[in-house]
Amino acid sequence: MNVTIIVPITTEGLRSEDELKSLCQPGLTVSGVTLASGPASIESRVDEAFAVPAMIIAAKQAEKDGADALVIDCMGDPGLATLREVVKIPVLGVAQTSMAICATLSHKFGIVTVLGRVAPLFDELVALYGHKDRYAGCRWVDVPVLEIHKRMDEVQAGLAEHALQLVRDGADGIILGCTGFLGCVDVIRKRLLAEGFDVPVLDPIPITVSSAATLIQNGLSHSQVSFPKCEEKRYKGYESFS
Amino acid sequence: MNVTIIVPITTEGLRSEDELKSLCQPGLTVSGVTLASGPASIESRVDEAFAVPAMIIAAKQAEKDGADALVIDCMGDPGLATLREVVKIPVLGVAQTSMAICATLSHKFGIVTVLGRVAPLFDELVALYGHKDRYAGCRWVDVPVLEIHKRMDEVQAGLAEHALQLVRDGADGIILGCTGFLGCVDVIRKRLLAEGFDVPVLDPIPITVSSAATLIQNGLSHSQVSFPKCEEKRYKGYESFS
Amino acid sequence: MNVTIIVPITTEGLRSEDELKSLCQPGLTVSGVTLASGPASIESRVDEAFAVPAMIIAAKQAEKDGADALVIDCMGDPGLATLREVVKIPVLGVAQTSMAICATLSHKFGIVTVLGRVAPLFDELVALYGHKDRYAGCRWVDVPVLEIHKRMDEVQAGLAEHALQLVRDGADGIILGCTGFLGCVDVIRKRLLAEGFDVPVLDPIPITVSSAATLIQNGLSHSQVSFPKCEEKRYKGYESFS
Amino acid sequence: MNVTIIVPITTEGLRSEDELKSLCQPGLTVSGVTLASGPASIESRVDEAFAVPAMIIAAKQAEKDGADALVIDCMGDPGLATLREVVKIPVLGVAQTSMAICATLSHKFGIVTVLGRVAPLFDELVALYGHKDRYAGCRWVDVPVLEIHKRMDEVQAGLAEHALQLVRDGADGIILGCTGFLGCVDVIRKRLLAEGFDVPVLDPIPITVSSAATLIQNGLSHSQVSFPKCEEKRYKGYESFS
Amino acid sequence: MNVTIIVPITTEGLRSEDELKSLCQPGLTVSGVTLASGPASIESRVDEAFAVPAMIIAAKQAEKDGADALVIDCMGDPGLATLREVVKIPVLGVAQTSMAICATLSHKFGIVTVLGRVAPLFDELVALYGHKDRYAGCRWVDVPVLEIHKRMDEVQAGLAEHALQLVRDGADGIILGCTGFLGCVDVIRKRLLAEGFDVPVLDPIPITVSSAATLIQNGLSHSQVSFPKCEEKRYKGYESFS
Amino acid sequence: MNVTIIVPITTEGLRSEDELKSLCQPGLTVSGVTLASGPASIESRVDEAFAVPAMIIAAKQAEKDGADALVIDCMGDPGLATLREVVKIPVLGVAQTSMAICATLSHKFGIVTVLGRVAPLFDELVALYGHKDRYAGCRWVDVPVLEIHKRMDEVQAGLAEHALQLVRDGADGIILGCTGFLGCVDVIRKRLLAEGFDVPVLDPIPITVSSAATLIQNGLSHSQVSFPKCEEKRYKGYESFS
Repeated sequence: MNVTIIVPITTEGLRSEDELKSLCQPGLTVSGVTLASGPASIESRVDEAFAVPAMIIAAKQAEKDGADALVIDCMGDPGLATLREVVKIPVLGVAQTSMAICATLSHKFGIVTVLGRVAPLFDELVALYGHKDRYAGCRWVDVPVLEIHKRMDEVQAGLAEHALQLVRDGADGIILGCTGFLGCVDVIRKRLLAEGFDVPVLDPIPITVSSAATLIQNGLSHSQVSFPKCEEKRYKGYESFS
Repeated sequence: MNVTIIVPITTEGLRSEDELKSLCQPGLTVSGVTLASGPASIESRVDEAFAVPAMIIAAKQAEKDGADALVIDCMGDPGLATLREVVKIPVLGVAQTSMAICATLSHKFGIVTVLGRVAPLFDELVALYGHKDRYAGCRWVDVPVLEIHKRMDEVQAGLAEHALQLVRDGADGIILGCTGFLGCVDVIRKRLLAEGFDVPVLDPIPITVSSAATLIQNGLSHSQVSFPKCEEKRYKGYESFS
Repeated sequence: MNVTIIVPITTEGLRSEDELKSLCQPGLTVSGVTLASGPASIESRVDEAFAVPAMIIAAKQAEKDGADALVIDCMGDPGLATLREVVKIPVLGVAQTSMAICATLSHKFGIVTVLGRVAPLFDELVALYGHKDRYAGCRWVDVPVLEIHKRMDEVQAGLAEHALQLVRDGADGIILGCTGFLGCVDVIRKRLLAEGFDVPVLDPIPITVSSAATLIQNGLSHSQVSFPKCEEKRYKGYESFS
Repeated sequence: MNVTIIVPITTEGLRSEDELKSLCQPGLTVSGVTLASGPASIESRVDEAFAVPAMIIAAKQAEKDGADALVIDCMGDPGLATLREVVKIPVLGVAQTSMAICATLSHKFGIVTVLGRVAPLFDELVALYGHKDRYAGCRWVDVPVLEIHKRMDEVQAGLAEHALQLVRDGADGIILGCTGFLGCVDVIRKRLLAEGFDVPVLDPIPITVSSAATLIQNGLSHSQVSFPKCEEKRYKGYESFS
Repeated sequence: MNVTIIVPITTEGLRSEDELKSLCQPGLTVSGVTLASGPASIESRVDEAFAVPAMIIAAKQAEKDGADALVIDCMGDPGLATLREVVKIPVLGVAQTSMAICATLSHKFGIVTVLGRVAPLFDELVALYGHKDRYAGCRWVDVPVLEIHKRMDEVQAGLAEHALQLVRDGADGIILGCTGFLGCVDVIRKRLLAEGFDVPVLDPIPITVSSAATLIQNGLSHSQVSFPKCEEKRYKGYESFS
Repeated sequence: MNVTIIVPITTEGLRSEDELKSLCQPGLTVSGVTLASGPASIESRVDEAFAVPAMIIAAKQAEKDGADALVIDCMGDPGLATLREVVKIPVLGVAQTSMAICATLSHKFGIVTVLGRVAPLFDELVALYGHKDRYAGCRWVDVPVLEIHKRMDEVQAGLAEHALQLVRDGADGIILGCTGFLGCVDVIRKRLLAEGFDVPVLDPIPITVSSAATLIQNGLSHSQVSFPKCEEKRYKGYESFS
């Protein structure tokens, strides 16, 4: 099984080879692609919009290259429904997958993320995916995506405090609200356990890769009724994109 | 007051000067722009994705040129939330506006549209805008967007029959599900009245232009809390777009 | 176009000629009527009940006199569904209209109003209109309707503080919860902007008058399926009312 | 315990002495009052509006006369929230009570009623009381209220057929949608049982009288927070009403 | 009319003869049964699971012995849907009944209970019964069920404070969240009234017994469509249970 | 990784060694346990109730024996929340897992099952898990669980027809509604594809085993806040059970 992670930005190296290797399982290899055109990082709907055309091209190429499933590496799930019109293999959004799983393990999930400006995007995803009654809200560390790695200690400490506050306010499950937080689960879990809260904390990327394996193993993909294959068209101005 | 209609396709002339003139009101002028790059017509999420980058640029330009409000001329509301991050003037989606108004005039609205493949997109908009309890479903004439004008009589007759079926199945208000149906309201209304159903039939474009006037007159625009102004970034591969 | 505002009380002069004039637009005249019988002001469901019979008579008369639309001048939307059974021209409720519009501009609206005792009435309207997921709650200045004008400075300052608190607690749009607050938008907007919150603040009466124009221009009215014309009956004890 | 049934019409004798007697229980007497002013029967929101002022006066009088609870004898629950602002004793609506009980005995209830024109009123009550997910819809015999007694056999046969259709379409509980159907339960139950459907069929008046006893016995009434006592005001034009 | 209260524990005497007597009404006798096997008290889903098999046997026996209705004496409503498959007489859950009634008297109910660990069970019942929009949350005194009687003064004072906090946070009706609190209503009501809050406080057992009378008097029971009679089977390991 | 499937019946051999082997993956072994006491098959809530006590004991033993996750092998998810109070390792319900996954692949899922009498149980699970807006309903082949294997051809043909009907009525994803249907996916998929419907068809057991692997790999289990560890108690009559 081959899972291709589409990192929907043009910045190389944000998803390192070591990280990709750590996501492999027996019988499952994971590779990553970045975009030929688009944003350096995703922190707004505008950033998402400039990413999707190149994601479409990357998705087609990955399917042609033998990928069995695609994972979109951004908690805004940019282009999720769009890519499903383009390929027949399953396309997974990390937000959709994490919310679906967290809702089976807990009554109400909270999200800890980078910036306050992405909170309304989670509101919209929660509405779209049908989890309004399960959503306990969102808190953020106020650190831009491209600074996460440089300020990792501060970020982890902040995420832990915000997760704790969400649990005290009624969440009983936590989702990391940015895929740049890969690997931050342990610090948060430890802090919550120290306060007596043994709740699931979900790291979206590894969970979604593993869920992709479930779909592949079971021959499942998205419904072609709700996500029908799009007609091939030529798009003016994008001649150089393919 | 100046309202700019963003026709999110590259096909010139679909929104004629006569149509634009018919949308003007005392104190309100309406102009239209098409896109420099993108799809010839919008019939899928992929088409939408290739339209949005050029819509962003068109929106900025329209604001700079003195527009007081923008209307997106497509029932999928492509780029609606995205454009709201780009400009401070109100941006209106015809689907969002029509659904909001129809829900105040009736208990359950139905939609008549072009192709079955856009029905799932309405499901998603209905969920996102919070009208699940008010939505009576969608029926379609199975005619592609670019053929509407050539097959207008067939289209109008089909829309009327489908609207009638929706009302018989519980809808008590109808929304035209494609802005290419501009002007088709009368035939449908007549057919429904002949069967004893006096229900509102909404033509999205004129209703939305008029609603734009309401927002302008009252100094209203979208919330900057939910649609915060995006940071200016350079997007690789889009250097020639602006 | 002629819009008649039904002021559902017997107190003359609460809606001044200057105010009515300020609501006119090119091509749109606005007139007001008060009631021959009913309450001096509306602050309870009982007050509403004593207003509706005279509102029915006033609505019939206004339609006969050539009104193209009716606006009910009270945030409880008293008699809204009832009047729709009486006339064919559109009848607009200021609460229904304001909530519908605010829900298109923001994710969650809050209401600032006169008295705590009307808060449960907003709960009921919110449920009826289908906005439960969009409602962030209600706060009040604790001033009776007939004292608003005398205590205007206190009222405006109070509304601004309560609006600010609602936004801090999660609202990203504000609706003035009493039509007696006409003109108070600027003070509130200024206070919110000073704290960094650029959110829409809706003044129900001018928004609803302008929305009435949209309906008239587009030949729209309420559904006769959900609001069927009522049969003419004689009502014992109301012989002198007509 | 004394329960007063407010028959919200001016027609005398529709609720017979025998019927009232049949509603009494050990320790519970039931009396009825009709209105001094208002409609002859209730078949529209307008009819309701002309009933409520006299209902307010009748409610006050009944409380003064020693009633322990009030029941409103009409499936539109006219004036329910209004009367709760007027008296401290519990006021019960037959629709609200029947829906609440039926939802505890079944998954989805259907309503059989008099005229199609009241169906939208049930939609509104269902939304207001929070039963949207439990409502399987409404069917009607197309007989006006004042003709029920004259055409009783036809009415009962029709109700049974419509109830059967509702159950076949997914209802598993039935509510009689007009208090004029008092006593029609047996015929319907028999017909449903003959087709193999053993589902509850609720007769609103006796169920609500009995529920009133529950409230009285337990010292319960409506919340004064959501239904606060209204201020005493004089209503112009209603001087002769009290 | 005979109502049998199934006390779903093996501890004798928790529901005293005096209490049972106090629940009788003219024409209604109330008796109680405890279980031959199961838990000493119910404070978890596991406790519930060990109670239900013996409840099934007790329910069958009670019906055979002439009971007209059954009431399950535990606020988790253990075995409610299960027992409805076993007997034809109505089976009432105290949580389901109390929530249904409180939702007719108030806009939002809160629950005061024994232990924090049962709060998630109320979440699940609220979802199952369809009251999510009406639920204001739960607070607890942190006293195990079997210690309630020994620490009654502390319990009552604690319940009153927690009820007060729930009302201050938006509840306008209160339900006692454990049937062991029988008789605690007056202290709570008094405390709330002293703070100006005149809201209903529901004591689940007497309310549910009285509601059982309503069902019996009206010949009502649960729907056999949603709760079809189960097939008689032999259960391995339970041979000695019947 | 070791996953233990709890087959919640006393009938040996229903889950064959070959089936268990087919569920294994690289790094994942799957074993099955049946119950020492309880029902021969599960077709009602009563059957479920007699299964849960022995399931609790089986779950504890499996955890002690080194299981890393438990899967309950019945589409009613009997004892799901209960077992989560007993063990710290993840406990998965096949209905909860299948619904969560199907809701990420499609807009509305339908269920094909054994008997009409279990349809109301799915209604309850759908409400509890929060999928009401995603549920397109249930159809059944009318074959008892223990006859599935004997009548396999008839069962498969029936499932395919019912799945087809559900899709025609609006479902765009299908879940097999009984774990006894293991392996029936292909026939149904083929039939749907032949009619032009390329929609996901979910086989609950393999999907849930694979999802268990996801949880194990990511160190996830249910929230201890919503499913707190139960106190150890002795249960009268169950002395011989452990």
